[in-house]
Amino acid sequence: MQFELGCQLGYDVKADGTPFLFNIEAQNAETQRVLSEQLILDPPLPSTTWTMPESGNRYFRTVAPKGKLTLRYTATVDLTSELTALEQILGMPPAELPLQVFTHLWPSRYCQSDKLERFARSTFGGLEPGYATVNGICNWIHDYVAYEGGVSDALTSAFDTVTQRAGVCRDFAHLAIALCRTLGIPARYVSAYASQLDPPDFHAVFEAFLRGSNGGSWFIFDATRMSDPAGLVRIGIGRDAAEVAFCSPFGNTGFDKPEVWIRQVGGNNLATVQGVRTSVA
Amino acid sequence: MQFELGCQLGYDVKADGTPFLFNIEAQNAETQRVLSEQLILDPPLPSTTWTMPESGNRYFRTVAPKGKLTLRYTATVDLTSELTALEQILGMPPAELPLQVFTHLWPSRYCQSDKLERFARSTFGGLEPGYATVNGICNWIHDYVAYEGGVSDALTSAFDTVTQRAGVCRDFAHLAIALCRTLGIPARYVSAYASQLDPPDFHAVFEAFLRGSNGGSWFIFDATRMSDPAGLVRIGIGRDAAEVAFCSPFGNTGFDKPEVWIRQVGGNNLATVQGVRTSVA
Amino acid sequence: MQFELGCQLGYDVKADGTPFLFNIEAQNAETQRVLSEQLILDPPLPSTTWTMPESGNRYFRTVAPKGKLTLRYTATVDLTSELTALEQILGMPPAELPLQVFTHLWPSRYCQSDKLERFARSTFGGLEPGYATVNGICNWIHDYVAYEGGVSDALTSAFDTVTQRAGVCRDFAHLAIALCRTLGIPARYVSAYASQLDPPDFHAVFEAFLRGSNGGSWFIFDATRMSDPAGLVRIGIGRDAAEVAFCSPFGNTGFDKPEVWIRQVGGNNLATVQGVRTSVA
Amino acid sequence: MQFELGCQLGYDVKADGTPFLFNIEAQNAETQRVLSEQLILDPPLPSTTWTMPESGNRYFRTVAPKGKLTLRYTATVDLTSELTALEQILGMPPAELPLQVFTHLWPSRYCQSDKLERFARSTFGGLEPGYATVNGICNWIHDYVAYEGGVSDALTSAFDTVTQRAGVCRDFAHLAIALCRTLGIPARYVSAYASQLDPPDFHAVFEAFLRGSNGGSWFIFDATRMSDPAGLVRIGIGRDAAEVAFCSPFGNTGFDKPEVWIRQVGGNNLATVQGVRTSVA
Repeated sequence: MQFELGCQLGYDVKADGTPFLFNIEAQNAETQRVLSEQLILDPPLPSTTWTMPESGNRYFRTVAPKGKLTLRYTATVDLTSELTALEQILGMPPAELPLQVFTHLWPSRYCQSDKLERFARSTFGGLEPGYATVNGICNWIHDYVAYEGGVSDALTSAFDTVTQRAGVCRDFAHLAIALCRTLGIPARYVSAYASQLDPPDFHAVFEAFLRGSNGGSWFIFDATRMSDPAGLVRIGIGRDAAEVAFCSPFGNTGFDKPEVWIRQVGGNNLATVQGVRTSVA
Repeated sequence: MQFELGCQLGYDVKADGTPFLFNIEAQNAETQRVLSEQLILDPPLPSTTWTMPESGNRYFRTVAPKGKLTLRYTATVDLTSELTALEQILGMPPAELPLQVFTHLWPSRYCQSDKLERFARSTFGGLEPGYATVNGICNWIHDYVAYEGGVSDALTSAFDTVTQRAGVCRDFAHLAIALCRTLGIPARYVSAYASQLDPPDFHAVFEAFLRGSNGGSWFIFDATRMSDPAGLVRIGIGRDAAEVAFCSPFGNTGFDKPEVWIRQVGGNNLATVQGVRTSVA
Repeated sequence: MQFELGCQLGYDVKADGTPFLFNIEAQNAETQRVLSEQLILDPPLPSTTWTMPESGNRYFRTVAPKGKLTLRYTATVDLTSELTALEQILGMPPAELPLQVFTHLWPSRYCQSDKLERFARSTFGGLEPGYATVNGICNWIHDYVAYEGGVSDALTSAFDTVTQRAGVCRDFAHLAIALCRTLGIPARYVSAYASQLDPPDFHAVFEAFLRGSNGGSWFIFDATRMSDPAGLVRIGIGRDAAEVAFCSPFGNTGFDKPEVWIRQVGGNNLATVQGVRTSVA
Repeated sequence: MQFELGCQLGYDVKADGTPFLFNIEAQNAETQRVLSEQLILDPPLPSTTWTMPESGNRYFRTVAPKGKLTLRYTATVDLTSELTALEQILGMPPAELPLQVFTHLWPSRYCQSDKLERFARSTFGGLEPGYATVNGICNWIHDYVAYEGGVSDALTSAFDTVTQRAGVCRDFAHLAIALCRTLGIPARYVSAYASQLDPPDFHAVFEAFLRGSNGGSWFIFDATRMSDPAGLVRIGIGRDAAEVAFCSPFGNTGFDKPEVWIRQVGGNNLATVQGVRTSVA
């Protein structure tokens, strides 16, 4: 399943020598292959790049002069995520989890799983471990948290959202991740190009580590229910949004509203009713 | 400089099949070599081990039956940390930082650097970047935060400590890390066996990424001023305490007070007045 | 309905001239009459007293010398609270509330009604205004919050408890008050001698302002369900616990566990199934 | 010293029967007399009024139909605040405070004095009790907290501001009040018409209870240093901003930017260098 996607970002740099760290390029991963891509900086500037080994995130830094900075990224990406029947997606207890996924059981800045223990157990403790629990969390968030801009901000965390009950995709993902972790399910934040998102924008979803038909794997979920999990092209994977900001300027900078796009090549009728496995541990 | 160290931990396991994740073994790293070591579990139990590539942390999991569980770890470790004259330890701006240390600029669960911006700039903004800033942060914490047990708990974070002004080594490290990050200095949490700590216990210190005579490096600091940075044998390195708990039981468990010890072999007169470089990025 | 009640409090005063503010005497109010009472301080000390006009709370201050301070209070109190059939207890909209009760619609230290808007509306918004809503709040707290010591402390507030879901009578009352206020129901904190509480102790309950058969009135509720509302002898009424601490020492002081008692004179079979109206606005 | 003052407020009421609670009228108090005043509602609507006995605040409620609602208030007010030489303004210890001011020692929604203990003692503990301490608090806030709109919001409290270090008059007053209370000085929030404020607006200041030449009295302070304490016409006095909102609509309502004005009659050269005593307890 191929996708053409990209973004165009514009900045008004106020001082010479302003560093920018970007994370907007599609990952190359087991189930996601970048077939072709192009990144254009205007003005043309040298950049330093790094792919984080444990996540596959592709970061690059450039140092911009005062004035206008424009970045345009385009790519064609092939997704081969494996689909798994929902009833075959089960939980994996701490005694069996691969040690390298424990990182995603620990609380993080915006996902304070250590403060949600009783809430999570009383609300979701009766669900079957595995898909049923993660899906139950997404359902609860969908039912009880309003998707609404302007209510949350960059400091808002899962502990706020669970009570304040409004936010955007980032807040939905943070709350779902925190609740999964509290219940012993490793979970991580994923920024993505998301088919069917309307209006198009960078999207935030999450992955939970569950036992599929091939053993422990990461399955992708969208707590907002606004995208199809099978049509998500992953950019960054992290403990939470702190780790995968699409742009971090180090200095005073204005910015244009980002343009983001993605369309499926030769098809547009995703409607997945199976689990989407993205990777093994 | 050699050290003999170890710990003995005892648990009262309430149910069969209780998993434990431990992180108590000394790291093998550029400047720290484990010469010999022994780990004894009583009862003898199989364990699964993993060394996290990006940090060198050594985790192991065992699954314990109901009853008493005792762990005894002993090691001889050689430290070869390089000393650097303090005035040669300078700052490194975001335009020059290696990309792999940006991880430690981001806020984490207990180090909410994103909420400390104005406080950090107004209090430390006048200091020279580099050693002077990190040392200034340690001095401020030493002067304004009381070292006192029973005031903070497992949920206490840097944002609390900066105002509540009391805590233990963990809180001191969290606050120092948060302030460094706010000021653009990558910083990470380090759990350690600490010479000269009285009474002996697992200790929490931190590392800041600065420019030494060999380029960008991690330098180790103790915001409590209770240990000598040159006599710290590192166990775990992480974004904050969430990542390097020495023991995480998954189930209801009683525990004995841990016994922890370390002594320098053939010498006991550390008094470092230089920066202690532990590793490159 | 008469009650004999009292308390004995003991302090270890560390310095001469330590002031204490107490609020442990039963109120004299429309539906609660103190028939006789005795207060003994040992050593005998002069005290300054004040009855707060808007609440009827009786405060007294004494200044103690170094050494042991003991206070013993005994009283016989007659309660004549009016009972109202539950279905006759209705809501009163802001357009009709007496202006003097608006004070108890506003957020306070431990009852941050301003942060609970969406949670309260989505959880309780479907209930009929009046008794049904307040009772629904009590039911929810009873079902979802564990009554458990040692989890909360003097800093714990309703915003914490709604997610952390454990606490003691003080926390239960704070959460109920906050939720009432968010939903437009004036609510206030009440400290009381509580019949049937086991073990006996100072108790925390709350009052909501609703429309009874005689117009707007305060009705008393116990979110813990551990006492009978008809057997509560009120001590202090306030915005939250901050205002009605039974003892506030100004200085370093040790204390004994308080002894508190209350027994119904000539009867012990309370089992109220009606609303208990304590006062008009 | 006479002042002419007033405000004009405009609302776009979205539904019939929307209640509004206002607190915008100048108080009549010991040192402040309303010589004449006029309040016009357009459309003309009946209103219910109440003067809170313990504060003198004048509240009124009206219930508005759908459509435009305009309120215009004008008044002439005479201030006779007594001036006291600064060195004569001393502290009053808890053993001597009138019991009715203890209310203003307790923590409130936005002034969590219970969480600032060590910060307050270490920062201000060395100052002389009395004027020197309150002035030291104002100086610290002036030096360390930026006066800046858009950083804080209606949920921001003193515990946030002490670290986040930016806010508006409301936040300045909250922090000053919280710090006074922590240090044993009763303090209360005051909304006011403020001469010399540029641009004119409703202003937030605070009063501290200190010992003047006539015994215990409330003295008024402006932590923003933007107004002259001798030129403040008080509207509302409360534990914090929660209690003295100038307008609380109960329902969805748009609003115009308020117009607020005040000018001294026959004089415009305030420059007080003495303490301004507004009332006895």
